[in-house]
Amino acid sequence: MPEFLYGRWPVLESLRANRRRFEQLLLLESIEEKGNVVDIISAAETRGVGVRRVPRRVIDDLAKGANHQGVVLRCGGYPYATLPGLLETSMHRQERNFFLALDLLQDPQNVGSLLRIADAVGVHGVILQERRGVNVTEAVVAASSGAVEHLHVVQVNNLVNALKELKENDVWVVGLDIGPNMQPLDRVDLNMNLCIVLGSEGDGMRRLVRDTCDMLVTLPMRGHVDSLNVSTAGSIALYAAWQARGWQGWAMADQR
Amino acid sequence: MPEFLYGRWPVLESLRANRRRFEQLLLLESIEEKGNVVDIISAAETRGVGVRRVPRRVIDDLAKGANHQGVVLRCGGYPYATLPGLLETSMHRQERNFFLALDLLQDPQNVGSLLRIADAVGVHGVILQERRGVNVTEAVVAASSGAVEHLHVVQVNNLVNALKELKENDVWVVGLDIGPNMQPLDRVDLNMNLCIVLGSEGDGMRRLVRDTCDMLVTLPMRGHVDSLNVSTAGSIALYAAWQARGWQGWAMADQR
Repeated sequence: MPEFLYGRWPVLESLRANRRRFEQLLLLESIEEKGNVVDIISAAETRGVGVRRVPRRVIDDLAKGANHQGVVLRCGGYPYATLPGLLETSMHRQERNFFLALDLLQDPQNVGSLLRIADAVGVHGVILQERRGVNVTEAVVAASSGAVEHLHVVQVNNLVNALKELKENDVWVVGLDIGPNMQPLDRVDLNMNLCIVLGSEGDGMRRLVRDTCDMLVTLPMRGHVDSLNVSTAGSIALYAAWQARGWQGWAMADQR
Repeated sequence: MPEFLYGRWPVLESLRANRRRFEQLLLLESIEEKGNVVDIISAAETRGVGVRRVPRRVIDDLAKGANHQGVVLRCGGYPYATLPGLLETSMHRQERNFFLALDLLQDPQNVGSLLRIADAVGVHGVILQERRGVNVTEAVVAASSGAVEHLHVVQVNNLVNALKELKENDVWVVGLDIGPNMQPLDRVDLNMNLCIVLGSEGDGMRRLVRDTCDMLVTLPMRGHVDSLNVSTAGSIALYAAWQARGWQGWAMADQR
């Protein structure tokens, strides 16, 4: 089954990452060849991907009514990674492990937004619980602004087992949760072999997943509304972890 | 013109904050009286607000197709604050000023999400550029999960003048931007009289707004996608500022 990625940044980043099987680039017949449309066409041509101009109703239909910005890429499915592959990525980078695990998140916007920040802070890989949770769909690619095309994402059918496997490889599994009896974020050394675990929008982590964590951390809050959106809380935690690593890999980190 | 707030948390928080003129609580006739629906009805009754059961088509219509979760509150407009009022709030709290200014943000989701984190970290007030930018609409209330009902929000018709007025009151105006020649976030002391300024989704701050800032800070990033979503970047900056203030006002801050 081909997929139809839509939107200018998502399509451009997918072509740049060059990890899918590309079939055809579809452009709205009235689209102007300027700005990043030029980059998209050029990236497609470099990779030998045919470009076709189509009427609006065709492209609306392929993007299933989403905001496609005149650009759709017909391509193969997302190239998932494996858990051993993730551990290898850390080794190649010669950095302490830096992973993110999502337990049954439901909202493609939240997942996309978390994948975007994960890419921005150099997370080595992301682990998704299969079934009932969100996969890397076209909507997730769009919500991540294409960042997921560069990331290593693993789908597992048992997140608890995957986390146990990480623990056997000396990775600290840290769950982000709301409530008492938890370490606030700044009391925990995040500069270690790390996997941050986030739970679903309504219910948080499932009990077994929570019990598998080496540690639970919380984000202090004041104010009136009880909990932050999972993508906001996750973004803050991921950024804090990267800051604890001295912003490793930041282009200007060496100049400090 | 009455407004029609929708969604369970937004309606509940609006009633709890008790700052609008409330006219009527409308409930889907088939709604079950359990969970927070009980709290909503009880909050309405406490404030003498009439409760009416209505068919789905009525409530769908009032919520203009948004996800109302069976609950709509007919009420007066948002009670905006004033700039002097914001400065007074800081004084009453006996805390260093902590403000957020939004320059022409367009997406109610982003604005709502920023207002939610602003509430969570105890921001004293938020300043919105009027016209062309987002106001506190029903969609913003919903996206903030109702947090904005507790916040002090000012609408100004000239953000540059408002920022200058803050500067005259010894507030440091710090713009968050992406690019070279800026201080990375951790090099700046955020524990001072502070207003963080965020620009619009596409273009960032307008030139004059940027020129008015005392300082521009940036969030270091690695990875492939150029910039973070404004609500993600803003959330990280607001949280960092609150952390720099020793999580002032956090219920457990005193026990540390």
